[in-house]
Amino acid sequence: MDNAVTLSRSLKLRNKFSYLPALSHHYNYEEYKGYSEKYRNFNWNVGAAILASVLVSSTSTDVSSDKLKKNKQEKTEKYKIIEAGEKKPNLPTYRAEEISKHNTKNSFWVTYRHGVYDVTSFLPSHPGGEQIYNAAGLSIEPFWNVYGMHKTKEVYELLESYRIGNLHDDDLVDHSDEELWATEPYRDPRLIVKTAKPFNAEIPPEYQIAHFDTPNELFYVRQHMPVPELDAGAHRVRVVLEDTGHSREFSLQQLRSLPAASVRAALMCAGNRRSEMHKVKPVKGIDWAGGAISNAVWSGVYLRDVLLTCGVDPDDTEGKHVILTGADIDATGQNFSTSIPLRLALDASARVLLATHMNGEPLPPDHGRPLRVIVPGAPAVRSVKWLECITISSEESSSHWHKKDYRAFNPSTTWESADFERAPPVYSLPVTSAICAPRHGDTVTAAGEGATPRTYTSQHALVLCTLTTCAGYAYSGGGARVVRVDVSADGGRSWTEARLQQDAAPHREHYAWTLWTVRLPVPAHATQAELWVKATDGNLNTQPETFEHIWNIRGILSNAYHRVTVRLQH
Amino acid sequence: MDNAVTLSRSLKLRNKFSYLPALSHHYNYEEYKGYSEKYRNFNWNVGAAILASVLVSSTSTDVSSDKLKKNKQEKTEKYKIIEAGEKKPNLPTYRAEEISKHNTKNSFWVTYRHGVYDVTSFLPSHPGGEQIYNAAGLSIEPFWNVYGMHKTKEVYELLESYRIGNLHDDDLVDHSDEELWATEPYRDPRLIVKTAKPFNAEIPPEYQIAHFDTPNELFYVRQHMPVPELDAGAHRVRVVLEDTGHSREFSLQQLRSLPAASVRAALMCAGNRRSEMHKVKPVKGIDWAGGAISNAVWSGVYLRDVLLTCGVDPDDTEGKHVILTGADIDATGQNFSTSIPLRLALDASARVLLATHMNGEPLPPDHGRPLRVIVPGAPAVRSVKWLECITISSEESSSHWHKKDYRAFNPSTTWESADFERAPPVYSLPVTSAICAPRHGDTVTAAGEGATPRTYTSQHALVLCTLTTCAGYAYSGGGARVVRVDVSADGGRSWTEARLQQDAAPHREHYAWTLWTVRLPVPAHATQAELWVKATDGNLNTQPETFEHIWNIRGILSNAYHRVTVRLQH
Repeated sequence: MDNAVTLSRSLKLRNKFSYLPALSHHYNYEEYKGYSEKYRNFNWNVGAAILASVLVSSTSTDVSSDKLKKNKQEKTEKYKIIEAGEKKPNLPTYRAEEISKHNTKNSFWVTYRHGVYDVTSFLPSHPGGEQIYNAAGLSIEPFWNVYGMHKTKEVYELLESYRIGNLHDDDLVDHSDEELWATEPYRDPRLIVKTAKPFNAEIPPEYQIAHFDTPNELFYVRQHMPVPELDAGAHRVRVVLEDTGHSREFSLQQLRSLPAASVRAALMCAGNRRSEMHKVKPVKGIDWAGGAISNAVWSGVYLRDVLLTCGVDPDDTEGKHVILTGADIDATGQNFSTSIPLRLALDASARVLLATHMNGEPLPPDHGRPLRVIVPGAPAVRSVKWLECITISSEESSSHWHKKDYRAFNPSTTWESADFERAPPVYSLPVTSAICAPRHGDTVTAAGEGATPRTYTSQHALVLCTLTTCAGYAYSGGGARVVRVDVSADGGRSWTEARLQQDAAPHREHYAWTLWTVRLPVPAHATQAELWVKATDGNLNTQPETFEHIWNIRGILSNAYHRVTVRLQH
Repeated sequence: MDNAVTLSRSLKLRNKFSYLPALSHHYNYEEYKGYSEKYRNFNWNVGAAILASVLVSSTSTDVSSDKLKKNKQEKTEKYKIIEAGEKKPNLPTYRAEEISKHNTKNSFWVTYRHGVYDVTSFLPSHPGGEQIYNAAGLSIEPFWNVYGMHKTKEVYELLESYRIGNLHDDDLVDHSDEELWATEPYRDPRLIVKTAKPFNAEIPPEYQIAHFDTPNELFYVRQHMPVPELDAGAHRVRVVLEDTGHSREFSLQQLRSLPAASVRAALMCAGNRRSEMHKVKPVKGIDWAGGAISNAVWSGVYLRDVLLTCGVDPDDTEGKHVILTGADIDATGQNFSTSIPLRLALDASARVLLATHMNGEPLPPDHGRPLRVIVPGAPAVRSVKWLECITISSEESSSHWHKKDYRAFNPSTTWESADFERAPPVYSLPVTSAICAPRHGDTVTAAGEGATPRTYTSQHALVLCTLTTCAGYAYSGGGARVVRVDVSADGGRSWTEARLQQDAAPHREHYAWTLWTVRLPVPAHATQAELWVKATDGNLNTQPETFEHIWNIRGILSNAYHRVTVRLQH
């Protein structure tokens, strides 16, 4: 049975981290209750219940599929050379027991392979916030195996700067991560890998504009943890009504007895285009270019129908939330979870889906096989994959992914001053757009072959119609339809309206992206041009010009004008 | 009976303009059919069916209540001196018959009092577009009486620059406008009058922040024409289903049999804050500062309930519209009218209202007595006042207010290139905000009486907490709740989050404005500061930094950061 499989896998992971407390959470609460009990009195002095997600900014690395395969057998040459934790003969040696005593904010030691590190002074600036407290006095290797974005030259060097000694050889533990990642699915080599473990990869811009509905194998991938292997036939999703204590399980077969539903919706990571904001001032998070958005037709049943079937009262939504829990598990044994307001889940026009299919095919493993949520118009993090549990609660999800991430702050808010409790969760996305072709640095031919070169006078200069078509995407969250895309090649002195390719859904229920093309006049005689794009949506909101005043510590909602510099050939 | 009253008034106006054709429109179609027939073969060679609204940019004039009263008896001294059309002895004299022959685009004459003008070359640049064709070979006085914003020194001078002669004394007609404006209601002298006829006036900023729900007498006023006088007891609203031909009339008493409904909603003119965009590059329209927005609780019944009662099919909304027609009538006899999509009217969360009450009192005449529409989250123009007819149609309203206005264009679109047919009507409003206190040019005291002056180091400079509270409003259309207001006193280098006062309605159904206050750190030792405000809404959309790239010919949707320069006293 699938739950058994999941449970077994979950326990396998938990056994691997058996020195860690299992945290009570909303997933399979009853099954895990006994398990949690066992660890209730575990001496855990740094309050592990509240974790922050890992926010390391990784640099873009274009990893080919060959490399990916090699990674499964051996470390790359790069890692061999610079990996932290080599034995250093001139430093003192510590026993694990001694190290484990340095487990407070006042004295905080960790180990990595042979290395012993006093990272006390680093604690306030850990990008993952309090998550680091899980490793107090312990090896950080199990965590880094799950949050693979740590494994970069820069982080290794940073870690070594806190080196104080060597771990005694008798206390060395093999924290090899092979097992965790052994069942990762095959990925299309055309994806642009940002982090390999967990797997995070962009769709290349040329494939974004090549299909209105992105082929499944090219859909961008955003994972927080290893991909769970679930059996569609055995899978059950449990609906729990916290106030009455009632719960009900559905097989996929049972879900199919509800009316079939399908929604064409783009999914976009709230951090899409973060790399552009990062250039203004560093932010923490995966260094996405514009490839963390793709579009698909999702099919399954409406979450609304499932909830009504379970007796949820549509007139009693005030202050209630739907906690969505997936089968993916982090290094502390916590399942991925987030929540959305119950009002949103029950709003027919919000069209929140429990999806089994993507573009007519069963969901691929990377996209939540066999069941995921689709919250159209919301940051993709709300569209929980490998869905196992739906809890109607008077509280938002208590997971760190929900409580300590995906919240918006102004540019002056620092990690120290950010009040995550007070900042509302992000449940929608602002209007955005990007130029997919030409690419930054491309040479484009103005008035080339096959063109009827036409010159005309604008307000500012003679301009020439370029033959090279400029194309890209635009998108707005919350059901807003994009109504106009404007493109400029002369620093905003003149704007040309693009032609739009759109889904037929009306404004307020429009969840797909918009593709656009434009024959763009470019300045005559110029050798290069900076192309700008901005979109306007059905609420008449448009994008901010620059990132300066929307900058935020987490680098989300990065929707200023997209700008691409090209060389011009006349 | 009220319809009789209206009809009589309408006919009175039409008789006044009896040389003009009555245009067929959606209001009281059957009653007027015969009337229209009469003029069907009228020799009208410039296609008067399509009119553009009057778009003259008027300058702000702070007219006191005393002045208003005086206006009713006599022209002001200013007007006496510069009014166009004085007899000029050295010019040729023309008979009305001769003038009436110059009624084509190739030769276009008009008269004003004694003056005869050849305005052929002016036609393309008439701010009101084709509306001017209604005056071909005729006096423009009846039109200017309705569209009073023409009556400025600048427009008189412009007109005189086209002077070619004098009208023969025997053809002089008294076009006095006393009758048209004789029944205008009393207005609170605290309103800031932008144009007297029609009456357009802002609420002063200090009153915006003084009340969460604006007192009725201080609510900004936007009129297109003279205010109709309607009798609440006799008033009927007719619902017409164009496809079946069915229609049904409701008295206010009959409407009250439907469930009572009430919505707290701000109304904002799409041109609010136009004056700021105007400074970047001139735009056409009333030169509103930030006072074309106010907030109220509106009560009545849901339009949705009315339509369902009339048998409108909620599952057949595709391509259908609700044409809303008021009792106010323009110089050609056309009733004010616009439309909204039927889907929007039937969307329960859109909460479109037929309102009889405003803040618990019957609607004042200036706000639509006895019945108006409230389309929350939409430009106020959709909230038709003095509502007489609701038509379910497969077409949008054909009125020029609907077809030739309230559409969005990019900054490069000119009056010549604007394609009003293709540009979608504006049915929502983007996120905006304004500083109401302090005012531009005010002197504010940093760390004054009663304060504990505190200094601290920001990233940039020593700053001092100002005692003077900074306050204003924020708003977003389409049901979006404002989630954050940020204020800066140092050019955006640092932002302070404001405290928000809000209605309890949830995001997606939040239609009221937000008031905000902030204790704002200002640069130490500086003698002046430019205060900036920007708001962010629940879709995480925020405002553009400047007006440059949202500029549009009509000056609507003017929602860039609001900036106020103040002197600092330490």
